[in-house]
Amino acid sequence: MRTVIVGGVAGGMSAATRLRRLDEAAEIVVLERTSYVSFANCGLPYHVGGVIEDRASLLLQTPESLAARFRLDVRVSTEAVSIDPDRHTVAVRNVVTGETSEITYDRLILAPGAAPVRPPIPGIDTAYALRNVEDMDALAAKVATSGSAAVIGGGFIGLEIAENLRHRGLHVTVLEAAPQAMAPLDPELAELVHRRLRDNGIDLRLGVAVAEVSPTGVRLADGGEIHADLVLAAIGVRPDSGLAETAGLTLGRGGAILVDDFGRTSAPDVYAVGDAVAKRDALDGSEVLVPLANTANLQGRRVADHIAGAALPFRRISGTAIVGVFGLQAAVTGWNEKRLVAAGRPHRIIHTHPTNHAGYYPGASGLAIKLLVDPETDAILGAQAVGEEGADKRIDVIATAMAGGITASGLADLELAYAPQFGSAKDPVTMLGFVAQNLREGLMESIQWHELEGALAAGASLIDVRSAGEFADGAIPGAINIPVDELRDRLSELPDGDLIVHCAVGVRGHTASRILHAAGRRSLNLDGGYRTWEAATA
Amino acid sequence: MRTVIVGGVAGGMSAATRLRRLDEAAEIVVLERTSYVSFANCGLPYHVGGVIEDRASLLLQTPESLAARFRLDVRVSTEAVSIDPDRHTVAVRNVVTGETSEITYDRLILAPGAAPVRPPIPGIDTAYALRNVEDMDALAAKVATSGSAAVIGGGFIGLEIAENLRHRGLHVTVLEAAPQAMAPLDPELAELVHRRLRDNGIDLRLGVAVAEVSPTGVRLADGGEIHADLVLAAIGVRPDSGLAETAGLTLGRGGAILVDDFGRTSAPDVYAVGDAVAKRDALDGSEVLVPLANTANLQGRRVADHIAGAALPFRRISGTAIVGVFGLQAAVTGWNEKRLVAAGRPHRIIHTHPTNHAGYYPGASGLAIKLLVDPETDAILGAQAVGEEGADKRIDVIATAMAGGITASGLADLELAYAPQFGSAKDPVTMLGFVAQNLREGLMESIQWHELEGALAAGASLIDVRSAGEFADGAIPGAINIPVDELRDRLSELPDGDLIVHCAVGVRGHTASRILHAAGRRSLNLDGGYRTWEAATA
Ligand SMILES: Cc1cc2nc3c(=O)[nH]c(=O)nc-3n(C[C@H](O)[C@H](O)[C@H](O)COP(=O)(O)OP(=O)(O)OC[C@H]3O[C@@H](n4cnc5c(N)ncnc54)[C@H](O)[C@@H]3O)c2cc1C
Ligand SMILES: Cc1cc2nc3c(=O)[nH]c(=O)nc-3n(C[C@H](O)[C@H](O)[C@H](O)COP(=O)(O)OP(=O)(O)OC[C@H]3O[C@@H](n4cnc5c(N)ncnc54)[C@H](O)[C@@H]3O)c2cc1C
Ligand SMILES: CC(C)(COP(=O)(O)OP(=O)(O)OC[C@H]1O[C@@H](n2cnc3c(N)ncnc32)[C@H](O)[C@@H]1OP(=O)(O)O)[C@@H](O)C(=O)NCCC(=O)NCCS
Ligand SMILES: CC(C)(COP(=O)(O)OP(=O)(O)OC[C@H]1O[C@@H](n2cnc3c(N)ncnc32)[C@H](O)[C@@H]1OP(=O)(O)O)[C@@H](O)C(=O)NCCC(=O)NCCS
Repeated sequence: MRTVIVGGVAGGMSAATRLRRLDEAAEIVVLERTSYVSFANCGLPYHVGGVIEDRASLLLQTPESLAARFRLDVRVSTEAVSIDPDRHTVAVRNVVTGETSEITYDRLILAPGAAPVRPPIPGIDTAYALRNVEDMDALAAKVATSGSAAVIGGGFIGLEIAENLRHRGLHVTVLEAAPQAMAPLDPELAELVHRRLRDNGIDLRLGVAVAEVSPTGVRLADGGEIHADLVLAAIGVRPDSGLAETAGLTLGRGGAILVDDFGRTSAPDVYAVGDAVAKRDALDGSEVLVPLANTANLQGRRVADHIAGAALPFRRISGTAIVGVFGLQAAVTGWNEKRLVAAGRPHRIIHTHPTNHAGYYPGASGLAIKLLVDPETDAILGAQAVGEEGADKRIDVIATAMAGGITASGLADLELAYAPQFGSAKDPVTMLGFVAQNLREGLMESIQWHELEGALAAGASLIDVRSAGEFADGAIPGAINIPVDELRDRLSELPDGDLIVHCAVGVRGHTASRILHAAGRRSLNLDGGYRTWEAATA
Repeated sequence: MRTVIVGGVAGGMSAATRLRRLDEAAEIVVLERTSYVSFANCGLPYHVGGVIEDRASLLLQTPESLAARFRLDVRVSTEAVSIDPDRHTVAVRNVVTGETSEITYDRLILAPGAAPVRPPIPGIDTAYALRNVEDMDALAAKVATSGSAAVIGGGFIGLEIAENLRHRGLHVTVLEAAPQAMAPLDPELAELVHRRLRDNGIDLRLGVAVAEVSPTGVRLADGGEIHADLVLAAIGVRPDSGLAETAGLTLGRGGAILVDDFGRTSAPDVYAVGDAVAKRDALDGSEVLVPLANTANLQGRRVADHIAGAALPFRRISGTAIVGVFGLQAAVTGWNEKRLVAAGRPHRIIHTHPTNHAGYYPGASGLAIKLLVDPETDAILGAQAVGEEGADKRIDVIATAMAGGITASGLADLELAYAPQFGSAKDPVTMLGFVAQNLREGLMESIQWHELEGALAAGASLIDVRSAGEFADGAIPGAINIPVDELRDRLSELPDGDLIVHCAVGVRGHTASRILHAAGRRSLNLDGGYRTWEAATA
């Protein structure tokens, strides 16, 4: 029984090794177009930047090592050029010699990954891209002779590359067509990333359209010119599904290969995994494109299980992801506010600004966390966290809570490890549970930063319950300062009508709103306080 | 309506502030025996060590700040000396003036915490202890004039103090009666903590009994003498339930105050929370003593909710905890093997030794993880993790998975945030899921380090599938070295009879055992490989 695998990295090679462990007798052939297999895609930007010095450390396996340990027949520089699903054959071309041949399969696994998006911009083909080891080598060589770079695209990969080019001393401009970088984040959290980029010398241009790419730089739609010795396109990736399409396999959203819960395509005995396939969203079951390594690896393993005779279904996807940007962690899981709004899905929002560990222990740093909650069911819809440290932990915990069906209020009951170096007696995640419970039970009503202007225009008054010193350092226009500790004695100073209270982050605002409630005044607490408002409106 | 609270720190003050937010009109009186409230107990050792330089940062609130913000009537240096549940009164003594008085309550919350255990050892009363700010000041003063210290007790607090005394330059001996420090860990993981302590100059003595304490040191039961300018006892804590006991309240295990799911004691209108009460174990519902801050705070908040009219029940407890030991993190949740064995509860064990993040990214460090699984239901029973970094995250994720009812095999489906600085495409937690699934499905059979000797004595052969170089650097006595990559060609060299395979951590052993399986040979993979065995048998 011969299994042929197209693509020899995350999904493909995970399938190959697992299949060998399940079936010592299987014939397993891996076809890989580039000269390398099992390389660490995710480390490529860091070798360009010199952070990962040892290039060899990115090459986790070789055809030889895989033959020795797993008896895999790994053929590099070998491209699958077409598939005949009826005859169960793959036409193969040696990309060095140009020689072609045919190989038959009993089972075929497609793991071709995703290719950089190339929008129809004149000259875009001269831009560098980063997908594989060859790309990395070419980019690194170019970097060595370049003084400046323009990176088109402010997503995960674009920002990683921008940071690494900066490490290498280049002047770096990042061009992003959207009004914010890092699309998985909502704008008020993305702003923290923008600041970090700019603080580190990145020339970040938002809302700019590239009209033309040339060897000397980029021309913008607004006529502006950006000189750059090196232009790199990181506008996103699309499923590398050409082979599947030509073979007549059913494609789904965005050209992704459509598979069932066990990775089976529309053709018998043909499976597909990883970046090339459409995944199922954990929240609504819709097709989603989430090109991430953990899912690619897991799907590869699951398909091997299925071929060997038994498999659990593919998991549904929340898109949990993280990126480091000049020491700042930005992590996400589930849906963000933009997506919920676009889908017209009701949601409750919570912003908090805790420290990663007890404030009294040296080295505590700030986190900005956002939780999105279903107001009907209290289910967690998504979360985002940005900070120096501990954003990864909180998003992993929330992603796990979502997987376990723990509600937003239920986060309060999580028993998380606490010592002052590592967390807080009320961990940031637990605290989200408290706030969620308060909102759910109507103990607190909140208002979002983008609702403030409308509410004030409609006649509400804004009470800033921070200290006089904080107020003097910067305040929301129109706010009246009454520190929370004086509020009980100064109730008579409050204007009539609707009240909005706010503090720096929401904690004192919560206590103030409870005081006002007892005094018979309804108030809304500005969610996330001054800190969220300030970032959102910057 | 007056609520009186005994104890003004974690549980007590959390109840007070929450109650104020729920009921602006309530009269809330907090009685605290010491001169301080709302202090950071967990930070005390670090101020002694000079890590937290600013003493004031440990004093999170004062009676004045709590009066201003929460209108609390906080009375420090005020001890509750007796309770009359029938008359709803508390007799109170000013510990400075000796004056006594009586206060009536509508509701009473007992949050007296836990007191250091003082076993009946002659001279033990001359030993220092660390529970509150006064203790800290006394200890810090003594440290300033001491060159050496003996710490009796190798638990969380003992080790934190030992580390901090070392920071201050003292010669430190830790005396532990059990054969291992850090009882929540099983011995093979505790050994990593032992090494860290010794590498940092701690004179760690295990299995020693203290016979007498004197101002010049400690005499051991075996006659040995340890000179120490300072002797500190950190043998554990016991519920400070004397007040409750005298008042006739029902006590439970270990003298803890017995409460129902809403914190109600046996006396009407009297609640109790925190270290003083018996908690309910998440696994078997039994009474457990888990003196930790997160639970104390949460219980305080929940009791306030109950008094104000509505509350969720107390959560059941898994004992999730963490301690830092000279930069090493040791974290636990749920039951350990010792406890499962003592309870006669069937369990499956998994040891892994992953890195905290992708090995190819600079700065990766090792983790030792242990997962305990119910062989019937696949439920996670507990976990332990020790390492430089990322042990906190993995234990928090596993604790959350347990709370969400995710099975051990289900960990494989967690979607955790991955970029090379923060994790692995197969995160250590995901990997535990793979191993759990393999064991569950019989794809791999494993043997524990403590079962090895017996198996070898019964005639099994041990095959070390590491490389020749690794074998030469240190091997298990009696092992035959056949590197996994050569195994297929050297099957004929294998002895007859039962086979046990092992590698460094278990990964190659797993592949080897699959090769042997296909060759018709049953084999057991030594769980955790050489690394677990080496630590366990050291
Ligand atoms: C620069 C960069 C950084 C990244 N960082 C992260 C990160 O931090 N975290 C994360 O989760 N993910 C990250 N990713 C994404 C991650 O690498 C992918 O999700 C994962 O590798 C997808 O696995 P796959 O098996 O589907 O495809 P790949 O791993 O890309 O493998 C597909 C392989 O198939 C080969 N191939 C394609 N077509 C053919 C053909 N016709 N014949 C033969 N071979 C073919 C390709 O050459 C390629 O080597 C990053 C990706 C890049 C490029
Ligand atoms: C040195 C040290 C380090 C610690 N480190 C950690 C850690 O890293 N992580 C963690 O989770 N936990 C840690 N803890 C435990 C944590 O501090 C406790 O679990 C938590 O404080 C318990 O809260 P509580 O409200 O029950 O009791 P406490 O916070 O101890 O408060 C009880 C208060 O009640 C007062 N009191 C007692 N009896 C009376 C009376 N009759 N009248 C008036 N007042 C009275 C006491 O003086 C005391 O101040 C540590 C504890 C110590 C001592
Ligand atoms: C490395 C690669 C070849 C896969 O090899 P692999 O042998 O399947 O994977 P690992 O070395 O991680 O080992 C995992 C196996 O060890 C087992 N294992 C892990 N720890 C174990 C332990 N302590 N005891 C026993 N077994 C253990 C796992 O269960 C798993 O086996 P299974 O799949 O049969 O359940 C493939 O993932 C790859 O090419 N990766 C590089 C590319 C990539 O992932 N890029 C994207 C991210 S940068
Ligand atoms: C600090 C202490 C006095 C409690 O004060 P507190 O006001 O209840 O607690 P916090 O300052 O943490 O604030 C928590 C409140 O803010 C709310 N909150 C937090 N972030 C918020 C946000 N962004 N928006 C709105 N509300 C928010 C929470 O919901 C919670 O209110 P709730 O209980 O009504 O739900 C008490 O815990 C204490 O004395 N601690 C020190 C002692 C101790 O814990 N020792 C052991 C560990 S070292």
